[in-house]
Amino acid sequence: MTIAFDFTVTTDRMEAFRSISGDDNPIHFDTFFARERGFDGPIVYGGLLIAEVSRLLGTALPGHGCVWQSLTMKFRRPLLVGERAQLEAEVKHETPPLGIRLIRLTISAGGRRIAEGEAMTLLPEPRSAREAAE
Amino acid sequence: MTIAFDFTVTTDRMEAFRSISGDDNPIHFDTFFARERGFDGPIVYGGLLIAEVSRLLGTALPGHGCVWQSLTMKFRRPLLVGERAQLEAEVKHETPPLGIRLIRLTISAGGRRIAEGEAMTLLPEPRSAREAAE
Repeated sequence: MTIAFDFTVTTDRMEAFRSISGDDNPIHFDTFFARERGFDGPIVYGGLLIAEVSRLLGTALPGHGCVWQSLTMKFRRPLLVGERAQLEAEVKHETPPLGIRLIRLTISAGGRRIAEGEAMTLLPEPRSAREAAE
Repeated sequence: MTIAFDFTVTTDRMEAFRSISGDDNPIHFDTFFARERGFDGPIVYGGLLIAEVSRLLGTALPGHGCVWQSLTMKFRRPLLVGERAQLEAEVKHETPPLGIRLIRLTISAGGRRIAEGEAMTLLPEPRSAREAAE
């Protein structure tokens, strides 16, 4: 099973993440600072790419009730603020009785691979469902 | 080198992360839903634990100008909303000419290991510093 969606990190979302995290690293806001270090402009927080992963895992694959066991991300190339990107998720392995899934994640933009990684998720059964099965 | 700081994820920060990420997984908000699945109450987003890592890497170790190369997190036990936690970071390896650092991360709360992982960071030199050295 594979699902994908497009997203764009706007300046407003960058400001919201700065506020929520307290991470005021100027590489995410200051064009001169970012260009001095070889980037075309301010680059999106890795933490905001992971917020997209959070949306995907928590709402769609596997969805509501999902708990993260582990997350691994490699950040290959920077994503620029305002640039349209795509997050793709594919289930690589499932252990149905325990609700465990290994999900492969890929973020790309403009033909570039931005980031890739894997999440292991658990989908605990509600107690009422467990009791009904006993 | 090791640094550590305490943090507490409040309901307000949970709501802000829900808004920024679009992740409305009820395990993070609905006490009945979370208890049905074996937790003591709504649990903190993994993405918010990573927002704390973002603050640490982007402001302190290595600090401003830092870029993530990779991040690996294992989520061992849930952190409850409103619970005081500690994030500790320790440099395990450095490659000074390239500004590469491997940083070990540990999050704990109330004597429990919440999460642990590793970040690989790069601290690119500004062009003006590179030109001055040539």
